[in-house]
Amino acid sequence: MRKEEGGVIVHGGGPTAVLNASLAGVIAASRKVGPRRLYGARFGVNGLITGDWIDLSNLAAAEIEAVRAAPGSVLGSSRRKVEPEDADRLLRLLKENRIDRVFYTGGNGSMGTALLLQRAAAAAHPDLRVIGIPKTIDNDLAATDHSPGFGSAARFFAHALRDIGADNRSLPPPVSIVEVLGRNAGWVVGATALARSRPDDPPHLIYLPERPPTIERICADIQDVHRQFGFAVVAVCEGLRDPQGEPFGADVDRPGSKRHELAANLAHTLARAVTERTGLRARSEKPGLLGRSSSLAVSRTDAEESFSCGYEAVRAASNGQSGIMVALRRVADDPYRVEHMLVTLELVAGVERRVPQEWIVAAGNDVGPEFLRYLRPLTGPIGEHKRLI
Amino acid sequence: MRKEEGGVIVHGGGPTAVLNASLAGVIAASRKVGPRRLYGARFGVNGLITGDWIDLSNLAAAEIEAVRAAPGSVLGSSRRKVEPEDADRLLRLLKENRIDRVFYTGGNGSMGTALLLQRAAAAAHPDLRVIGIPKTIDNDLAATDHSPGFGSAARFFAHALRDIGADNRSLPPPVSIVEVLGRNAGWVVGATALARSRPDDPPHLIYLPERPPTIERICADIQDVHRQFGFAVVAVCEGLRDPQGEPFGADVDRPGSKRHELAANLAHTLARAVTERTGLRARSEKPGLLGRSSSLAVSRTDAEESFSCGYEAVRAASNGQSGIMVALRRVADDPYRVEHMLVTLELVAGVERRVPQEWIVAAGNDVGPEFLRYLRPLTGPIGEHKRLI
Repeated sequence: MRKEEGGVIVHGGGPTAVLNASLAGVIAASRKVGPRRLYGARFGVNGLITGDWIDLSNLAAAEIEAVRAAPGSVLGSSRRKVEPEDADRLLRLLKENRIDRVFYTGGNGSMGTALLLQRAAAAAHPDLRVIGIPKTIDNDLAATDHSPGFGSAARFFAHALRDIGADNRSLPPPVSIVEVLGRNAGWVVGATALARSRPDDPPHLIYLPERPPTIERICADIQDVHRQFGFAVVAVCEGLRDPQGEPFGADVDRPGSKRHELAANLAHTLARAVTERTGLRARSEKPGLLGRSSSLAVSRTDAEESFSCGYEAVRAASNGQSGIMVALRRVADDPYRVEHMLVTLELVAGVERRVPQEWIVAAGNDVGPEFLRYLRPLTGPIGEHKRLI
Repeated sequence: MRKEEGGVIVHGGGPTAVLNASLAGVIAASRKVGPRRLYGARFGVNGLITGDWIDLSNLAAAEIEAVRAAPGSVLGSSRRKVEPEDADRLLRLLKENRIDRVFYTGGNGSMGTALLLQRAAAAAHPDLRVIGIPKTIDNDLAATDHSPGFGSAARFFAHALRDIGADNRSLPPPVSIVEVLGRNAGWVVGATALARSRPDDPPHLIYLPERPPTIERICADIQDVHRQFGFAVVAVCEGLRDPQGEPFGADVDRPGSKRHELAANLAHTLARAVTERTGLRARSEKPGLLGRSSSLAVSRTDAEESFSCGYEAVRAASNGQSGIMVALRRVADDPYRVEHMLVTLELVAGVERRVPQEWIVAAGNDVGPEFLRYLRPLTGPIGEHKRLI
């Protein structure tokens, strides 16, 4: 090991319930194999490029354990990217502070930023090693079997649909529409299928952005289900759009292109439209950010893998690797086993992995058995509620 | 014990996460002290008056344990009341089936129905004993220290605000408005104060229907908080109204008087109004019915008390009591201890207990220490997340 080596870790994008477990993995590994000096950028790229870094070198073991269990990001995050004009300044800052390792925890956007940094460093700071750590509840990172953060969000929403479903069965609103996190990919909304133990268990309908439905189709599906079971529980992805790319008339949360922004009240707008078109009173629920932060719903597998991906990132840097992201390769389903592998940032930067069409049923309103086989080890068992009616 | 005695249990109103624990308590007690024949009305009053009853006499011990743990109502519930014209028919049905005990689990509306039944029985079926079992997440039943169902809903929302708060701190939307269950009383929204460990922890503002705020006041409060902390997390009760009794322009969920119906999109409407008036972008979350059904957030104390109230109801009937509800009396705070007592249905029927004005801070945007002292034993500890920022 060279003298005076140092590392900085930065978080990009939306937090997850287990993002800090990756941070704990980085801290734990750095104690074993270096860098001895380890900093965390406050509020993501904002703190990274201004040198607003928290010294993580002296956290006590109990503090690291407490970090590991906390949802959100204990360092703070941001959606800001490193722009080419920031990169030179940042590389100088890193050099001045004798930082030769950057750990970047994030999704496909963050991996793009990591790649930009890696490329800019080739000339300006050739000793720099840039290592990506996967993190996204959306599970849309390429080249990895799945991403830390996804299993816990999937577990939260599977439990949510099971429990809301039990409530709805007892005192049925005719229709209930639950909005599930997920920007352009339906991995999390698909996971609500795990809420079912019997064929008539909720959710009765699941809509993924990979198969945009018309409002007419949604209404017809709901009427069918209502006729059959007396109530209908519907899970919709927050990023759901109709075949024209429009959010069913919902308010778009931020200025910008309608097609790329989330709707702020999708479930409510759909519920109103369903009530008007079918005459069946529909209500809506939107657990929102609780779905990515709930510490009660954390998947143990997800938390462990999140830690281990952070740990492996530090080992990879220590072994001289750079320009790579730690990824998970599934070795076996039963008993479930994964291995870590290293993939180049080029493979993941800006690439979006969506649910394969063949994992969605032909009618476009549910997921198929391959999806559930893939999913089950990641959430752990959801459990069944006793029914008498 | 008389021969051929029999009981029927009926659920009224919205389910809770621990309603079935009361049912399990009734079943368990009936095995000990009778009635040996025990039925459950399917879908509340609907099943009660039509004789659509599920035989609960032969459930196995493991089934009773599974019932005890399930959220919702395993029997089904309804919002229907027993009308005077239904009462005679119902009393005949009970007599024909040699049912001499009715256990009615519900809130203040259900206790009104239980009272009506009790009074009608005096002439038509004088052997009938009617016993109320308290159940409401709203915690608005009179004559009891608190109601089964409340502690778990309070625990859910305290965890939710803590976890959403950790997420918001990491990647702050300027303003976040979380809608919390509660029709006319602010007990549950007040409980979100337990999410805080430090003075600047979310939620920063809590609005209860007992102190209706103007939109101007809400916006001014939010601007103050945002200036101080850089973000603002706000908990609002779903039953919140402005001083004129209007839901801030939100859609009202059901036909009927605006003043007595819930708004369907209160948090979203408030978020839009705050964004327009303050220029601070506000988002909204509405965990909705998950707040009363989440099996992950059940308070152990609440589940145990729910069971014990069911158990005590059967014992009371066995001792010849009628026209009473089982209530909880707090004997001590630390260590927390409660006793059961029996209160007449007259004391609780149709009476709504709201949060005392002196438990709300003068500014009307938070609860005070008396509220928290009352609350803590009911939810159990919420726990603190590690913070570095």
